[in-house]
Amino acid sequence: MDIEAVSNYLLGLQDQVCQMVKRFEAQADFIEDHWQRAIGQGRTRALADGQVFEKAGVNFSRVAGNQLPPAATSTRKISATGAFDATGMSLVLHPRNPHVPTVHCNLRFFTVKGSADAGEWWFGGGYDLTPYYPYKDDVIAWHQAAHQACQPFGEEVYLRYKRWCDEYFYLKHRNERRGVGGLFFDDLNEWGFDKSFAFLRSVGDSFSDTYRRIVERRCDTPYGEREREFQLYRRGRYVEFNLVYDRGTLFGLQSGGRVESILMSLPPCVKWQYNWKPEKGSPEQDLYLNYLQPQDWLGLENK
Amino acid sequence: MDIEAVSNYLLGLQDQVCQMVKRFEAQADFIEDHWQRAIGQGRTRALADGQVFEKAGVNFSRVAGNQLPPAATSTRKISATGAFDATGMSLVLHPRNPHVPTVHCNLRFFTVKGSADAGEWWFGGGYDLTPYYPYKDDVIAWHQAAHQACQPFGEEVYLRYKRWCDEYFYLKHRNERRGVGGLFFDDLNEWGFDKSFAFLRSVGDSFSDTYRRIVERRCDTPYGEREREFQLYRRGRYVEFNLVYDRGTLFGLQSGGRVESILMSLPPCVKWQYNWKPEKGSPEQDLYLNYLQPQDWLGLENK
Repeated sequence: MDIEAVSNYLLGLQDQVCQMVKRFEAQADFIEDHWQRAIGQGRTRALADGQVFEKAGVNFSRVAGNQLPPAATSTRKISATGAFDATGMSLVLHPRNPHVPTVHCNLRFFTVKGSADAGEWWFGGGYDLTPYYPYKDDVIAWHQAAHQACQPFGEEVYLRYKRWCDEYFYLKHRNERRGVGGLFFDDLNEWGFDKSFAFLRSVGDSFSDTYRRIVERRCDTPYGEREREFQLYRRGRYVEFNLVYDRGTLFGLQSGGRVESILMSLPPCVKWQYNWKPEKGSPEQDLYLNYLQPQDWLGLENK
Repeated sequence: MDIEAVSNYLLGLQDQVCQMVKRFEAQADFIEDHWQRAIGQGRTRALADGQVFEKAGVNFSRVAGNQLPPAATSTRKISATGAFDATGMSLVLHPRNPHVPTVHCNLRFFTVKGSADAGEWWFGGGYDLTPYYPYKDDVIAWHQAAHQACQPFGEEVYLRYKRWCDEYFYLKHRNERRGVGGLFFDDLNEWGFDKSFAFLRSVGDSFSDTYRRIVERRCDTPYGEREREFQLYRRGRYVEFNLVYDRGTLFGLQSGGRVESILMSLPPCVKWQYNWKPEKGSPEQDLYLNYLQPQDWLGLENK
């Protein structure tokens, strides 16, 4: 188990994603902040007011501490004395055009050196897509990429982590999914380090090209005030999810991470409107009825 | 102890606050929604896109259940079998002009009829002011009203609840106060029902005139894009506080309340900007340095 190797991979992935974003941005550039505090260090990259991306945040961090915060693991019993060492990369890209979906990816690796958890480690992460307007082709392409990334690791892997993603990105108080999902896994160590790390890389390498093609297809689609308003309204759900439920956000805030890097995931501009409901038969209602419900996008569930 | 009397007072206060808002709004009107669900019922009033108020939400609710949610009390041990009956009123007014502060008030009454807590009841609530631009007169007028409301109940009451308010409206992850505070109290029953209810009324009756005068003073102050952008940015803190810390919001979401009524407190339009810092010597920095720090606004602390 080699945390340096994971860290280096994640730094490279951060570069790769930023390059993908920069293909769309002739003018706007990433600000890069290197930060260092008691908990560790990080490399934060943020782009604002781009032509295609209204806000893009890509974070790398390497943190350590004497007590693992509760949000670090979903199922694992945390040792009271467990010192931890962790590395992670996370990104959220908020496009300007409402026809382009928001994308999120988080990949992380934890090691614990405590009495009860001596020598333990695990991988976690995944990615999910949050469209504002319904394009079935985009969602299928997204899930196909996820499926291909999982396929070498076992037939059932995609469906298991796709379902976990549907469960995880769920706003209980709204009884709504955040978007159309993707993959989510946590506490992964049963495959041993080499295979688990290979899986992390396979997931990390699988979404950026697919997302780029979706952006290319949709970023010039004309839109008006109606679509913009719906995008701003739906972004409210992103904020609600991240601040009320997201374990990555809570882990960051609980562990004393750098607030500006953690909350960089929040959208640039958001609206909350009292008791808004989509019109019957509208594309907005189509999104609610046919996209924000967990679905068998690839027709694999009853095979 | 008479929950009906408290309920009726809070319904009247809801009317009174809505009338105050309507004095500023020749065109826009409140939508009124009566809701009923398993947990109870409520009367929600919402005004959007007013001339002075960009969003105003004033909620009354009367709820009951078999198990008091954890967020219902800050210090009290909750009986495992405690059925509860509660009534509350809460409001948030988000003005359009950045020179006018946002105001929040919540007043609530709980009764518990369980084995361990048999016959227990308590009042809680308070109010706080969140300015975007620094006007010392407004803050002092606000705290004077709070002081006057508390004075008949004991010399030390204002300072005790003013300090509690400073502690409560605190964003730990930012190490920032939400605004300039006001009053916050909870688990109040040591005065007996009659005096406690009289205190609730004194608090409830004390802020609306004072706030109206602040609005009158500031609502025609000219402002530009800079002030508007700062207001939208600062509103992000309101969202962060309400979704991460606010017990009223968490109680509502935990107890199965009506989400649209609970989250009506969220601002109409909000911006998050990466790593924004106020300019040295600017009014925005003045707000951070001299207003968002707990202060002895009335010069009472060392008397």
